[in-house]
Amino acid sequence: MLDKDKVLEALSRVNDPELHRSLTDLKMVRDVQVRSGKVEVTIALTVPNCPLKDQIESDVRAAIANLPEVNQVSVHLTAMTEEERKALFGEPKEGAAAQYNHIQRVVAVMSGKGGVGKSLVTGLLAAALARDGYRVGILDADITGPSIPMLFGLQGPVEPGPVGIRPFQSRTGIKVISMNFLLASEDQPVIWRGPLIGRAITQLWGDVMWGDLDYLLVDLPPGTSDAALTTMQSLPVKGVVMVTTPQGLAAMIVRKAVHMAQAVGVPIVGVVENMAYFICPDTSKQHFIFGPSHAGEVTKTAGAPLLAQLPIAPNVAALCDAGQVESVTLAEIPALLKAFIEAVPVAERRTT
Amino acid sequence: MLDKDKVLEALSRVNDPELHRSLTDLKMVRDVQVRSGKVEVTIALTVPNCPLKDQIESDVRAAIANLPEVNQVSVHLTAMTEEERKALFGEPKEGAAAQYNHIQRVVAVMSGKGGVGKSLVTGLLAAALARDGYRVGILDADITGPSIPMLFGLQGPVEPGPVGIRPFQSRTGIKVISMNFLLASEDQPVIWRGPLIGRAITQLWGDVMWGDLDYLLVDLPPGTSDAALTTMQSLPVKGVVMVTTPQGLAAMIVRKAVHMAQAVGVPIVGVVENMAYFICPDTSKQHFIFGPSHAGEVTKTAGAPLLAQLPIAPNVAALCDAGQVESVTLAEIPALLKAFIEAVPVAERRTT
Repeated sequence: MLDKDKVLEALSRVNDPELHRSLTDLKMVRDVQVRSGKVEVTIALTVPNCPLKDQIESDVRAAIANLPEVNQVSVHLTAMTEEERKALFGEPKEGAAAQYNHIQRVVAVMSGKGGVGKSLVTGLLAAALARDGYRVGILDADITGPSIPMLFGLQGPVEPGPVGIRPFQSRTGIKVISMNFLLASEDQPVIWRGPLIGRAITQLWGDVMWGDLDYLLVDLPPGTSDAALTTMQSLPVKGVVMVTTPQGLAAMIVRKAVHMAQAVGVPIVGVVENMAYFICPDTSKQHFIFGPSHAGEVTKTAGAPLLAQLPIAPNVAALCDAGQVESVTLAEIPALLKAFIEAVPVAERRTT
Repeated sequence: MLDKDKVLEALSRVNDPELHRSLTDLKMVRDVQVRSGKVEVTIALTVPNCPLKDQIESDVRAAIANLPEVNQVSVHLTAMTEEERKALFGEPKEGAAAQYNHIQRVVAVMSGKGGVGKSLVTGLLAAALARDGYRVGILDADITGPSIPMLFGLQGPVEPGPVGIRPFQSRTGIKVISMNFLLASEDQPVIWRGPLIGRAITQLWGDVMWGDLDYLLVDLPPGTSDAALTTMQSLPVKGVVMVTTPQGLAAMIVRKAVHMAQAVGVPIVGVVENMAYFICPDTSKQHFIFGPSHAGEVTKTAGAPLLAQLPIAPNVAALCDAGQVESVTLAEIPALLKAFIEAVPVAERRTT
């Protein structure tokens, strides 16, 4: 016969989609009323306005509706108090979110040189992976000069989750975190010395509720100092995508980054040459604004393939400034995506 | 009557052009022979192959030739031993060169964002100042991603001077120092955390024999972390030139740098917008490749004037890659130079 215990048992098989623990285990089930086929339950979300509340509600509804003799289900949502949350998860502590995250592949996007398009390549790759059904996150490790928020049109502040910061979701579902989301204003400078930069990066890794991801792309700042070192030494980075431009100058500095990756033992999965040429909209002629390609030197030093050569396209800059990097279309992207997935395959692919 | 004492007295009025102390005081005069109007002297240079040896030799020759009764002068050059040098200057110690340096104005070139052309602007400004008769130095504070050596076609290693490292002289006489000159190969990465980056910058300031300069330009790396902090806090920086590009993305990050300069109390002398447009060589039409200008937002935040808007010119990239930044001609440079000199005038101008 339908009773409260049957309902509780059904709910013990419903998992919080973020924490991968059952609602009963998480003490989220607050009230169960059963009266002649009508079931009314109250679920306490771990945080108010949980972005996954619709999914939780429909999972609860489905689990109860599947029980025999049920003819009506009402689900009320409330939220835990601060004290209840602490009783469940303990005092907030550093790196607490990491145990709930399942990230298959962490790939850093690097160049050594600034302004070559690391963030653009990160954004284009993430968008292409997301379109292809992969679950993707971006950790913007450029603490003092973050570009990712503007490319995706995202602005802070971020909301706290039950065990850490919740990343933003971009319009195509990419999970994004950046230091800018933690600042009062995007113009605010982060005037920190190296050790704090490194610490900020480990926090964006361990204190963020990334959840289940196929790929987490880490957008590194220029240079081979704290940010790059901490990322490669403290995060389980599987590989590096090196970004360069045709300038000999860029190639020299990118080779430094290649040697750094080799020194710390992180494989280079491939090289992307950005700003390779400009197509004049009037004449359709290619102009090699930054000179002939030096990508060959970089791929040779890196011992890695050239994944793509991307043009300078005014509409790309415009879309990026407008926060619409996910709407950028370039003929080179499908091949870039294919080469990337082959270079860093995921073991099991679970599309969301 | 002409004798050894007269010659020594004449030489006591000849100064080492770098150390501003007399040759006798520096114990550089080693042997003086006087025989019926013929004077033969041996001068021990502080270091072998001193780049100023020709000047020292001609100063010595002139001082002796001016004495009455002299009809022939022979000058032999030798060099001090390591022990003699130590006896004179003491054990090499940190910052020892600084006391011999006289630098009128230190100006940092900054942007927060990478790849906007800080090094190009530094190089163009330095070259224009040098052409105008100013004594100019460049301290490349981008320890992990230095661009200055390639722009000027300079490669290490640098030579030690008597009390510190001797900077390179570019073909137009600009004194240049960069971390790259201290590396075994320009491809070698500097995998240092922040504190070492800061220390490297203070050494490039205090351990380098800059000598007399009207302007020392400090080319900063991207970001608002160690390099920028150390430069602004440990060097007597009189002002900052902010470099930006038309991208809204760049403008946002440059505004962070503006706020940092304001926070540490260093005035912003002006803003340079680089890559403002591209002139198609076929149609001569301007293409705003990186979108419409955002310089207005930056100058407004900075409370500083726009010093110049520079185009993207393929021949500029080519000259830079070829180490010939000093040969770049752009119509905008004279106005940039004038605005810069007015914004940061030197008290006394002594042309070399």
